[in-house]
Amino acid sequence: MRKILIIGSGKSTAYLQKYLLDKSEAEKLLITIGDLNLESAQKATQYHKNARAICLDVFDNESRTKAIKDADIVVSMLPARFHIQVAKDCVSLGKPMVTASYVSPEMQALHDDAVAKNIILLNEIGVDPGIDHMSAMQVLDRIRDDGGKVILFESFTGGLVTPENDNNLWNYKFTWNPRNVVLAGQGGAAKFLQEGTYKYIPYNRLFRRTEFLDIDGFGRFEVYANRDSLKYQAAYGLQNVKTLYRGTMRRVGFSRAWNMFVTLGMTDDSYVIDNSQDMSYRDFTNLFLPYSPTDSVELKLRHQLKIDQDDIVWDKLVELDLFSTTKKVGLEHATPAQILQKILTDSWSLAKNDKDMIVMYHKFGYEKAGKKHQIDANMVVLGEDQTYTAMAKTVGLPVAMATLAILNGKITDVGVQIPISKNIYEPILNELQSFGISFNEKDVPYLGYNPLNI
Amino acid sequence: MRKILIIGSGKSTAYLQKYLLDKSEAEKLLITIGDLNLESAQKATQYHKNARAICLDVFDNESRTKAIKDADIVVSMLPARFHIQVAKDCVSLGKPMVTASYVSPEMQALHDDAVAKNIILLNEIGVDPGIDHMSAMQVLDRIRDDGGKVILFESFTGGLVTPENDNNLWNYKFTWNPRNVVLAGQGGAAKFLQEGTYKYIPYNRLFRRTEFLDIDGFGRFEVYANRDSLKYQAAYGLQNVKTLYRGTMRRVGFSRAWNMFVTLGMTDDSYVIDNSQDMSYRDFTNLFLPYSPTDSVELKLRHQLKIDQDDIVWDKLVELDLFSTTKKVGLEHATPAQILQKILTDSWSLAKNDKDMIVMYHKFGYEKAGKKHQIDANMVVLGEDQTYTAMAKTVGLPVAMATLAILNGKITDVGVQIPISKNIYEPILNELQSFGISFNEKDVPYLGYNPLNI
Repeated sequence: MRKILIIGSGKSTAYLQKYLLDKSEAEKLLITIGDLNLESAQKATQYHKNARAICLDVFDNESRTKAIKDADIVVSMLPARFHIQVAKDCVSLGKPMVTASYVSPEMQALHDDAVAKNIILLNEIGVDPGIDHMSAMQVLDRIRDDGGKVILFESFTGGLVTPENDNNLWNYKFTWNPRNVVLAGQGGAAKFLQEGTYKYIPYNRLFRRTEFLDIDGFGRFEVYANRDSLKYQAAYGLQNVKTLYRGTMRRVGFSRAWNMFVTLGMTDDSYVIDNSQDMSYRDFTNLFLPYSPTDSVELKLRHQLKIDQDDIVWDKLVELDLFSTTKKVGLEHATPAQILQKILTDSWSLAKNDKDMIVMYHKFGYEKAGKKHQIDANMVVLGEDQTYTAMAKTVGLPVAMATLAILNGKITDVGVQIPISKNIYEPILNELQSFGISFNEKDVPYLGYNPLNI
Repeated sequence: MRKILIIGSGKSTAYLQKYLLDKSEAEKLLITIGDLNLESAQKATQYHKNARAICLDVFDNESRTKAIKDADIVVSMLPARFHIQVAKDCVSLGKPMVTASYVSPEMQALHDDAVAKNIILLNEIGVDPGIDHMSAMQVLDRIRDDGGKVILFESFTGGLVTPENDNNLWNYKFTWNPRNVVLAGQGGAAKFLQEGTYKYIPYNRLFRRTEFLDIDGFGRFEVYANRDSLKYQAAYGLQNVKTLYRGTMRRVGFSRAWNMFVTLGMTDDSYVIDNSQDMSYRDFTNLFLPYSPTDSVELKLRHQLKIDQDDIVWDKLVELDLFSTTKKVGLEHATPAQILQKILTDSWSLAKNDKDMIVMYHKFGYEKAGKKHQIDANMVVLGEDQTYTAMAKTVGLPVAMATLAILNGKITDVGVQIPISKNIYEPILNELQSFGISFNEKDVPYLGYNPLNI
């Protein structure tokens, strides 16, 4: 039996476990699921004969090292900041490792040691990052192999709620870490390339400079720019591209409404409000508005943000109970961002039967034989229920497939890697199709941002 | 002869030197001016018989310690970050020290040692901080001594150009460190108290939530909030105050126009622009606007910021040559904030005969015998020329007076201090009057922010 250690049994691990358990007989796999919460780990084994659960505290050196030593390969599904200790053990014990998280500088620093040990530390093989890398590289490589020169690449991903459960004014619910949603875009200007010129968008304008996208059968979406669209420019081989833009997808109207929170200062995570515990939602809102003994919080907010009487963004605020005198914050010494997250969680949590949806959209522009072409590709994955979510499926399946491919010697790269080489992405994208995860591609007229070539 | 060591002979030291030199005969003072630039120190001595110049590098331990050992008292007019090494020497050698800078945490940490050595490290005795503390405390103490209960304190200071030289559309020129002006308000929300409620203003709204002030003979000014208005709440004894607000004064219209830079992202100091050197001012402006092959930078900016055809803010941008194709940035790897500073310096530098102006405005609200009262106090100081500036006068004279008072045993406090006790501020404010630095006080009806007590 080949031994796989999966660390973490939280959200997004259901498909990963199911995939490997389903293959465990044919592939002779013994799967150990380790979690600080033993009960959660036991439930995750589904009491399968080829699986066992252990209680694992990644901060306990002895038990962590022992569990890793016992395994042939390690999958870390912990929050990203906890990977590094596992990775160090994997390197020193010579075990390959797989994660769905971004490569941290500490992880990158292990590259040479991992090469020396002849093992791979494969990261960014979830959905975003993960499927975005693989699906983009597949088309980019195909264009280049065919003699084309890539001049434009745009890529957008969003985690949303399915159309049938999309029943609030924001057309949004939390399908993943709410804190990341509240803090999105903070910490520096967004940077991207348009027709060969660098462009920068400060946080206060980020949610007002969106663009629209249409997906057949799913209607219209909007996108706002990611912080650094140039992050993968070199890795993707796009040094000479003219337009490079990456972003986050939302339903139309979300960003304009979200910008109200940014403008008011409600997304600020840099200071705490001392008396936050007993504040009503209305008190919280009033913190960001001028004092008045008589004027209502409602009118002060309308005036500050210049919201017309008949503007739908107003109803979005009311829907969140932002003016409630009875709903209490209930968080001690909380930052504005933490309080906003609490308020949003009241309204935006998935209901019991709600399902999530992952959407991804790439645009590829290229020149070939003096002519310009464009390929648009999009993927939509719908969740089945609250365990088998679209997020768990698109994160967990690539991780599981890559883990098995490494065990079976089909992935032979070593060192710290992300899935951008053909020998990694090709078999995984092919197999994902059999799980209904595939891209609709179409050739469209090249548009770019300078269609008349002026 | 009593020996005074003044470290630093840069801007803002002219009045300090003149005051002490003028008193040197009667008070038997020997003044040593130390500077890294010996020529500058020599010029500052005015070749007075009671003065000498030395070359002093504060990072050279031996010469620094020797100079301090030689002195009876030390005045540091260095940039704030350089005070600490001087202060440590002063403590270990038992010499009192005076600075015009904010008390840093490192400075504060020397308190107990300074007390043990029976010396004072007197800081924040320039204009802001300095005259603001002293003039505020004088009125606050008087109100309280007279049985009043302070319920409101607001305080504003501005460094501007005199009305006669106020000849650009911004009604502003750089009279002090331009970098501080460009970065003003960054690094966290502004926090203050209004009628017992905390209020927070995020950076993106700071320059849009201004208030107006009038000063007889000088017209109307506006103020925007300082980052932390509550900084001196305890030191001033204002724990039970209902309204506490501190801010920066500008001429009316400055802040609304400045907010354009904030909104565009031009004040960002957190990233560098790689190809900044050869950019024109127009290229720089275009970085923050959407790409278009045809639309002008001018129209894109008007559209993004919703600037009407007849809005004067537009002319303010044109006056700065922000759309120039010929003026070059000329700075390598500069941040947006550094580039903006360069552009502003072109337009806002003081001309040879321009004079500066310091304005300060306090409002004191108090209750006495069941009735509410208000005192408004303001100070305006005009510079004489580019050496004897209002800034040099209002910073240098209090420093000089405090230095002499310590030497003469009139200030006997020890430890790390700021000038908020009566025995410090009373003689200094009295003497400042003979130099034309005084406040106009008037009783006005109490207004506050809830005049009808609703």
